[in-house]
Order: sequence, then structure tokens, then C-alpha cells
Amino acid sequence: MIFLIASVSAESTIDHAPFVLAGVLLSMVVIYLASKIGGEIATKFDVPSVLGELVAGVIVGVSALKLVIFPESGSDGSDSIIMMVLQATAGLPLSEVSGVFTETSEVVSVLSELGVIILLFEIGLESDLKQLMGVGAQALVVAIIGVLVPFIAGTAGLIYLFGMPTIPAIFAGAALTATSIGITSRVLSELGKLSSREGQIILGAAITDDVLGIIVLAVVASLAKTGEVDLLNVVILIVSASAFLLGAILIGKLVNKVYIGLASSLKTRGEIITPAFIFAFLMAYLGNVIHLEAILGSFAAGLILEESDQRHELEKQIVPVADLFVPIFFVSVGAKTDVGVLNPFVPENQEGLIIAAFLIVVAIIGKMVTGLGAFGIPGINKLAIGMGMIPRGEVGLVFAAIGSSAGVLSRSLNAAIVGMVIVTTFVAPPLLRIAFGSDSNELPDQLKLETEIPNKES
Amino acid sequence: MIFLIASVSAESTIDHAPFVLAGVLLSMVVIYLASKIGGEIATKFDVPSVLGELVAGVIVGVSALKLVIFPESGSDGSDSIIMMVLQATAGLPLSEVSGVFTETSEVVSVLSELGVIILLFEIGLESDLKQLMGVGAQALVVAIIGVLVPFIAGTAGLIYLFGMPTIPAIFAGAALTATSIGITSRVLSELGKLSSREGQIILGAAITDDVLGIIVLAVVASLAKTGEVDLLNVVILIVSASAFLLGAILIGKLVNKVYIGLASSLKTRGEIITPAFIFAFLMAYLGNVIHLEAILGSFAAGLILEESDQRHELEKQIVPVADLFVPIFFVSVGAKTDVGVLNPFVPENQEGLIIAAFLIVVAIIGKMVTGLGAFGIPGINKLAIGMGMIPRGEVGLVFAAIGSSAGVLSRSLNAAIVGMVIVTTFVAPPLLRIAFGSDSNELPDQLKLETEIPNKES
Repeated sequence: MIFLIASVSAESTIDHAPFVLAGVLLSMVVIYLASKIGGEIATKFDVPSVLGELVAGVIVGVSALKLVIFPESGSDGSDSIIMMVLQATAGLPLSEVSGVFTETSEVVSVLSELGVIILLFEIGLESDLKQLMGVGAQALVVAIIGVLVPFIAGTAGLIYLFGMPTIPAIFAGAALTATSIGITSRVLSELGKLSSREGQIILGAAITDDVLGIIVLAVVASLAKTGEVDLLNVVILIVSASAFLLGAILIGKLVNKVYIGLASSLKTRGEIITPAFIFAFLMAYLGNVIHLEAILGSFAAGLILEESDQRHELEKQIVPVADLFVPIFFVSVGAKTDVGVLNPFVPENQEGLIIAAFLIVVAIIGKMVTGLGAFGIPGINKLAIGMGMIPRGEVGLVFAAIGSSAGVLSRSLNAAIVGMVIVTTFVAPPLLRIAFGSDSNELPDQLKLETEIPNKES
Repeated sequence: MIFLIASVSAESTIDHAPFVLAGVLLSMVVIYLASKIGGEIATKFDVPSVLGELVAGVIVGVSALKLVIFPESGSDGSDSIIMMVLQATAGLPLSEVSGVFTETSEVVSVLSELGVIILLFEIGLESDLKQLMGVGAQALVVAIIGVLVPFIAGTAGLIYLFGMPTIPAIFAGAALTATSIGITSRVLSELGKLSSREGQIILGAAITDDVLGIIVLAVVASLAKTGEVDLLNVVILIVSASAFLLGAILIGKLVNKVYIGLASSLKTRGEIITPAFIFAFLMAYLGNVIHLEAILGSFAAGLILEESDQRHELEKQIVPVADLFVPIFFVSVGAKTDVGVLNPFVPENQEGLIIAAFLIVVAIIGKMVTGLGAFGIPGINKLAIGMGMIPRGEVGLVFAAIGSSAGVLSRSLNAAIVGMVIVTTFVAPPLLRIAFGSDSNELPDQLKLETEIPNKES
């Protein structure tokens, strides 16, 4: 007890708040610099700027400069260059480094999550509910193929080719099913293809895949913990996910009327954007607490705000807000990824690299074939749809993190999954660009128009 | 050691991150709802909307609904309604409430601090450096009167009228010297008076007062700790503050050229706003680490971006960002204020209330006379300048918090200072409006024009 009290009062004598604020400000400066430098270089080389932001994140993150690092990747305050700068410039005492580092990272993490919530809200606003429902059947088939093929091929291959035990093989197979909505939708938006039929199918399938992925995750997590599958939990998840999305669409008209009424009658500043964010954050909260994802909530919120003068003004006003929040997400995803596991010169990486090579092949082919699910639409670019489903992004890393912490994955299998996530995330943006580029041979005028408009407009 | 390890591993088995995200999302929904409802009601009654946001903050905060509360005001997780909602909806275990509450509050606190940093950046952008330097001499005199008169009258009154010991009396006197730039500048902006001569003098004096206040705070804090004044520290503060502001003005031209160059040559999204925020956050960080304030840094950053096409576009783009961040600050200031100390029906409040009444009179008169310092400008509204200096806001609360934690202030004196801060903060916006209204008798056309334009435009 005495120890406890002593430690509490020792903590309270030094106020962490000014140091945490300084740490957050400095992290933001680094993140914005990295995102701009990375994005601009990517644009120069004619690849999507989000790829530049991811690579810049890797450079400032745990793999290299250790400017933006997080406790989840095993770092502590003594590794952080920003904490060293605070010690040198702000008089941060050595004894407080660990606490201030944890609190600063926590704030940056939440800002990064708000970033992807706001990104999906913006994507929802840019999407058209009717168009999305028009390609709903195709999106569902694409998503289901994209879950089944990589899962079966991956799990079976690991068991029969690599002689791996069943549970770790299922876990790795499950990690192959993910699709990163964040990365895919941002690339589509940059290419100006978000509202194309292909774009809407990819988006619908990625959203469906996110829900399927959460169900798969629940299954394998309970498998890892207890050795058996909690069927009731799976049923609850499926019902709540369906109820949430259908409910959102059903209340859509009402919400829309209330929103337009508020936005046109409020007299104080923020009359357009504040009610929209109240709704988006409330939906994100609901998505979070029913054990779906916050981003599904904000996407639904954006989707159900229908065409109106207010929505067009909102789309304009959300741009600077997204410009400040979204890069925090992409740079953080890069910063949290330890590319060291892919270094072939480290002997203990080699087993992992061989497994990774297998997983990467399955991951890419298993999603490329999903384009075959886009049935009944003549002239649709099936290759582009398959490419759009490839990036695993942060969702794949969640699988690896849960598997590792449950003790199911060996070091080499964990490294292989992380390696697969890195490669699929980084190859998808240029592949998607090429796939859409092949489209334009048929439509040279459209290509011309698009290359003339700089990326800015997206 | 075993205990330590056990507690660490017990912590790490439950991941706080999803709960903290849910808590932050819910806090934001409450804060935005409160700010909009408060602001709209205030506008209906023709008082500045910031007053409505402050009152709404009091209502959702520690004084009443306990929706948005912070550990600093002595609350813990078991008081928080938001934590109860998370227990009921998100399955937050009782054992984790305290930790999740602390982390959620920390994130909301940092967001609120980013709010006032962005507010001052916006105010800096709207201000004109040349005009501000043109009234620099008057602003300096106004600030010095506003520090000396309340300090001497308050300290002497407490010693001679109330028989108080010297050190607590000096502390209370020091708390009377503060001026809240945040509240004053927001009210001026709402009244459309920010770029008037009076507005610029108030702003210049409030900024100067902030620097003087930090010096006064350093003096009384060292007095409270060691019983004597650390002169070296005071000199360092004065030199660094002057060097910071002069340095910012000197590098201004260069920064401006770099900014315009970047904003017009960057090809990726956020080309206008991201470089501006890199600069603003960097300056805020510098202001923070040289033991000035972060808001001085962001104000200086806004001030030195000179008139250009890019700055006009930036002013437009910053509006939605400020609309989302700034209310977090004002609602939090209200939420942190415990108005319970002013309840006259609680017997132990009465001694504090009598002292509070004295402090309030000194606080209001002591700042009203500062208008006399606006010399040499015929026809200037001296009353309005005095009124603009009245609100103590968050700066006054910092004095009370430091005095309390140093054990220098009795409960009643602490309550009296908090009461003085509340009253001055809440009376200033309507008083300022009345003072500027009296102006308009001379300029009836301007008044008419202003009442026709809704507050939105500010």
C-alpha cells in the first residue's frame, strides 16, 4: 500500500500534460512532413501518393528513424527520438520518459484512428448508395471468393506443403482473407475511379469483406483461445452486422431530413460540418461498441447523407479536415510496420521468408481471381477488381498481432504474415493503376482528360 | 518486483485502445452537441455564442451532468457517465474503468489544447502584423496597467482588509493579472471587431499579458516553493519571450516566401493547409518548450503569413478545421470549472464567497481602467478596451491549480479565485458587446449592417 501511494504521489508531482502536448505537436510535424515528402515523391514517379505516405511512414517509424513509434511494436520511450528531443529541449526528466512516451503514443494512435474514421466518412459521402446497391450482388460474390480462395489455398498449402499444425495454418489462412478498405478506397479516389462501376464493386466487396473478416477473426480467435469455435458468438456478429447496415439504410431518409433542416437553420459557425460530425462520430461509436468496426459506422453515415446543397458544401468543407487527419493514419500504418522481418541477410528470417513467399503468391492470386465474381456486367474490368482487393493493410496486421499474443504463431510464421501484409499493401496501388490504365486503351479520351487533371482534385 | 510484473501483465491482457476510442468518440458527440445547443441558445438571446459554449460545458461537466470530466478536477472513472455508458454498451470491465477514463480524458485534453492552438492560429491569420505593431505602444501600456493595478489592489486588499498572510495574498493577486486571449479574441471575432483599432489593442495587450502572466507565474511559483524569487529564471523567461516573438517577426518574410512557394508547387492534396499546419505546430512546439505557451507560437505563425492568394485560401480552409477543434476547448474549459464553489447555501463556501466578491470587484475595476492606457488615439472606445481585458478564463485557473497543489492556498481562497475566474469569464462577453454597442450610437449604419449579417460570417 505504501508503495502504491508513494508511486501515485510521485507521479502527480510532475505534470505530464505539457510534455505530452509537446510530444504530440512534434509527432504531428514529423507525420505531416513525411506524408508531404512521401506523397510528392510518389506523384513525381507517377505512383499513387498514398504509397509514398506509407513508405515515408516506414522511414520515420520503427524500421528506420524511430521518430514515430508505438508501444505495440515493442518499442519503449528510450527508443523514441522524439522523447530524446523532449529531454534535450523541454527538460523532460529521464524518470518520466516512459510515461510520457506511452501517453503521447496513445494520443497519436487515437488521432490516427480518427483519421481512418474521417477517411471512410469522406468515401461514404463520395459514394452513391443506389449505385452501390445496384452492384451489391456482384460485390457479395467478389467478397466471398476473396475470403474462400485465399483461406483454403493458404491453409491447405501450409498443412500439406510445409507440414504445419492445423491451428497456426488456419490462423495464417485467415490473415489472407482481409482487405484494407482504407488503402483501396484512397487509391481509387486518387485515380478518379471511386464512382466507376469497378470502383463501386471493389468498395462494396471491401466493406463486405471487412464484416466477413471480423467474423473470421472471431472464429479463429476463439479457436486459438479454447480450441473450439463459439458458434453463438458468430451468429450474434452476423446478425448485428446485418442489422447495423440495414438499420442505417432504413433510418437514412429521416437522418437526411434532420441534417438538412439543422444545416440550414443553425445560426452559429460550423452549421454544416458540426451536425455531420455528430452523426458520423455517433455511428462510428455504434459500429465500435457492437464489435464491428468504427469505420463501418462512419462510412454508413457518409453514405446515407443524400444529394443536397448542404451535402455538396459538406463535401467541400470536409476536404481540409481530411487532409489534416488522414495522413496521420497512413503514416502510422507505415510507422508500425517493422520491415526488418524481411531482411534476407538475417539468418533467422530465412524460414519466414520462404513461407512469406508462398503466402504472397496465394494472397495475390487468391484475390486476383475475385474479379470473376463480377458477373453479368459486359465490358467490366475484372482484372482491376481483383487488383483492388489485394492490399491487406492494417486488417492483416491485426490478425498477426492477435495470433502472436495468443501464442499460436511461431516467430517465422508471424514474420511471414507481416511480410505478406507489407508486400500486398505496397504492390496493390501500382498494380491497380496499371489495371485501370489498360482500360483506357478502349477509352483514350477519358485517359487524356484524367491525365490533364492533377491528383489534387480527387 | 513480482507485484510490478503482475500488474503490468494484468494490464496488457485487456487492450484499452478500442474502449479509449469509443470513449473519445462519445465525448466528441457530447461536446459538439453541447457546443451547438449552447451556442444557438446564446445567439437567440443575442449574447456571444462562446458564452453559450462555456455554459453548456459547465452543464455537461463536473458541476452537473458529469459527462465530460477530467482527473484534474478530482473526478475518477466511477463519476463519469461516459464510462458507465461504455460499461453498459461496450462491455468495459469494472477493473479497467479507471485506466480507460484516465486515457480518454488525456486524449480529450490534448484535443482541447490543439483547439486553442488552432484558434490562435486562425486569430493570427485574421490579424495584421503592421496594424498590431502600430498600436504596440498602447497595447504594452494597457497590458502593464492590467497587471499592476489588479495585482497591487488585490494583494494589498487581502493583506490589509482580510488580514491574510503575504504569500497567499500575492498568489491571489497574481491570479488577478491574467487575461484569457482565447475568450477575448473569440468574442471580438464574433462581434466583427477583431480588426478594429480597439480589437487590435485588446489582442496585442492580451498577448503581452500572457507573456507577463507567465513571468508573474514563474515568480510566484518559485516564491511558493522556496519562499524566495529566482531572479535568474525570471530574466531567462523575459529574454526568451522577447527573442521568440522578435525572432518570429524577423524570419517572417522568409517563412512567407517558402510557404507561398510550397503551396503553389505541391501536387498532392492538402497543398495549402498541410504546410501551414507544419509551421503552426512547429511554432507551438517551440513556444511550449521554451516555457512560454504553445498558443503564442501558433498565433505568431498565423501573424507572419502575409497577405497572399494562398493565405486567403488558407483562411477559408481553416474554418471547418477550427469549427471542429475550437469548441472542444471552450466546452472543456466550462466542463473543468466546478461552479459548486459558488453555491451560497453550502456553509463552508461563505468565507470564500466574501473573498470572491472582493476579488471580483478588484478584477473588473482593475482591468476596466486599462482602457486609459490607450493614449493618443482620438475617439477610441476606452471602455471597450477595458472590458476586453476582463476575462481570466483558463489562465486564471492555472494559477489556482498551481497554488492549490503547492499547498499555499486555503480552501476558501482557492474557491474565491475560481469564483472570480468564473464570474469575470462569464460577464466579459456581454459587457464587451454592450461596450461596443455604445460605439454604434455614433455609427448607426454600421450597427445596422452588423445586425443584418448573422454571426456565421465571423
